[in-house]
Amino acid sequence: MDYDLIVVGKGPAGLSAALNAAIRKNKVLVIGKDSKALSKSPSIKNYLGFKDIKGDDLYQRFLEQIKYYDIDIKDKKIKAVYAMGDYFAVDFGDEMLKSKACIIATGIDMGKVIEGEDKFFAKGISYCATCDASLYKGRDVVVIGYNEESIEEVEFINKVAKNTTFINMYKKNIKLSSNINIVDERPLKFDGLIKAESLELSDGSKIRADGFFIIKSSSKPKNLVPSVKMDEKHILVDKDMKTNIRGLFACGDITGKPYQINKACGEGQVAGLNASSYIRNVSRETK
Amino acid sequence: MDYDLIVVGKGPAGLSAALNAAIRKNKVLVIGKDSKALSKSPSIKNYLGFKDIKGDDLYQRFLEQIKYYDIDIKDKKIKAVYAMGDYFAVDFGDEMLKSKACIIATGIDMGKVIEGEDKFFAKGISYCATCDASLYKGRDVVVIGYNEESIEEVEFINKVAKNTTFINMYKKNIKLSSNINIVDERPLKFDGLIKAESLELSDGSKIRADGFFIIKSSSKPKNLVPSVKMDEKHILVDKDMKTNIRGLFACGDITGKPYQINKACGEGQVAGLNASSYIRNVSRETK
Repeated sequence: MDYDLIVVGKGPAGLSAALNAAIRKNKVLVIGKDSKALSKSPSIKNYLGFKDIKGDDLYQRFLEQIKYYDIDIKDKKIKAVYAMGDYFAVDFGDEMLKSKACIIATGIDMGKVIEGEDKFFAKGISYCATCDASLYKGRDVVVIGYNEESIEEVEFINKVAKNTTFINMYKKNIKLSSNINIVDERPLKFDGLIKAESLELSDGSKIRADGFFIIKSSSKPKNLVPSVKMDEKHILVDKDMKTNIRGLFACGDITGKPYQINKACGEGQVAGLNASSYIRNVSRETK
Repeated sequence: MDYDLIVVGKGPAGLSAALNAAIRKNKVLVIGKDSKALSKSPSIKNYLGFKDIKGDDLYQRFLEQIKYYDIDIKDKKIKAVYAMGDYFAVDFGDEMLKSKACIIATGIDMGKVIEGEDKFFAKGISYCATCDASLYKGRDVVVIGYNEESIEEVEFINKVAKNTTFINMYKKNIKLSSNINIVDERPLKFDGLIKAESLELSDGSKIRADGFFIIKSSSKPKNLVPSVKMDEKHILVDKDMKTNIRGLFACGDITGKPYQINKACGEGQVAGLNASSYIRNVSRETK
């Protein structure tokens, strides 16, 4: 066996799972790229313990902390994770690694579609009203809403913004506060120099704003593990973060909303500790 | 309405819930004493963000952080939380406060239940001296004390009772007023017909009294919120931290193991954000 535990995902959930499993004396491998969603966040105020911290500063603290434990890190793409009964085989295409237990913490793919969205992400474009609304106090804000949640988010943003426009990608006949400008055209393209400054719509018009929020239910996480049970785009877990596959756990954004750091770390902790119990039990069985 | 949200419990889960709800512009009250379990911990290594921190240092950071928001704190014992349909009434005995939503984050009481304690609760047995001492003016009272607070409570009760007995489960060599009878035996069992009439002790003796007060760090959730659904000693919640009662959420140790800080904060965040959605929806309905 190469590892006791392989954690797929290097965001807050994956690191918290790895930390907790490593404290329990397990040999752990974390697979993944640096968490962009976290490290690009300009200001985090709702992770308890830090009044106001830059996403990247918090993420660096996370990475620094796990250095003190028996945790390997690998930034390499995975083809698939196979559940082999009492162990897992992680397939990288050119190599295969085995572990007793596995935790999926890949986060959620936000499925970026609007032209310029990637380029200006965290530069005038945000996916999180709770995180970033306060940056636009007294400013002009555009919210592009794809779901019911976006109704709530635009109202929240509207409490701090000067002028709020809602690009309605959700459904017809929504009700919003009377001072929110509702637009029924599709968003096509962000323009700007250093940051997003305007959004071009399907009728050819352009809206200028200081900030743009894109609120959508995230799309298609990679179904890495054949036969893992999903609930639409989220992996189904119980309160111990167990999936339907024995020895496979999931935590963080991949298990559902809210997509927040404390929630992710908490679930990572639960997954890491329960995976540790599981590993102890299989080790005993196979002795 | 006095508050949008009342959070019962001032540990990590309660503070995280309060913080997240306050960021969402809700007016929040947190009720509770300082978290002893956390502040007494000599070293915490598995709260992501801190390599190794004293429990009290972490707790002070938590308390400092929530000062920046519209969060009131009240250190006062609660008699009960009543679900009134579209609001909650929190009963302190001498006052009543109303909120749109409520979150229970009282933690878990590791102490054992005395035989007959549940049966006679509110029938001669009380957890709250402030609330119920006046019922026993000129009567015989037994106080079973597990903590420092119980010293204060028994002195308070002694001012109104005729005869006061203190069953000392706290620590050796406590000092009380000379007319309080101190007993160092363990409480075993309550007896009585309709109400608790006597308490059997570990030496086989029995004390008769009109009222019995049990003063420990937290009371049972079932006694705090009548009709909340439990799974043995934990409050049953779904993944949104909703209980069976509309507008009532729970988070932290009270919802189940592992009893860990990151798990508590994560659940607090989920509860705080979902309570915020709930509050927004009731506010809209009642407009």
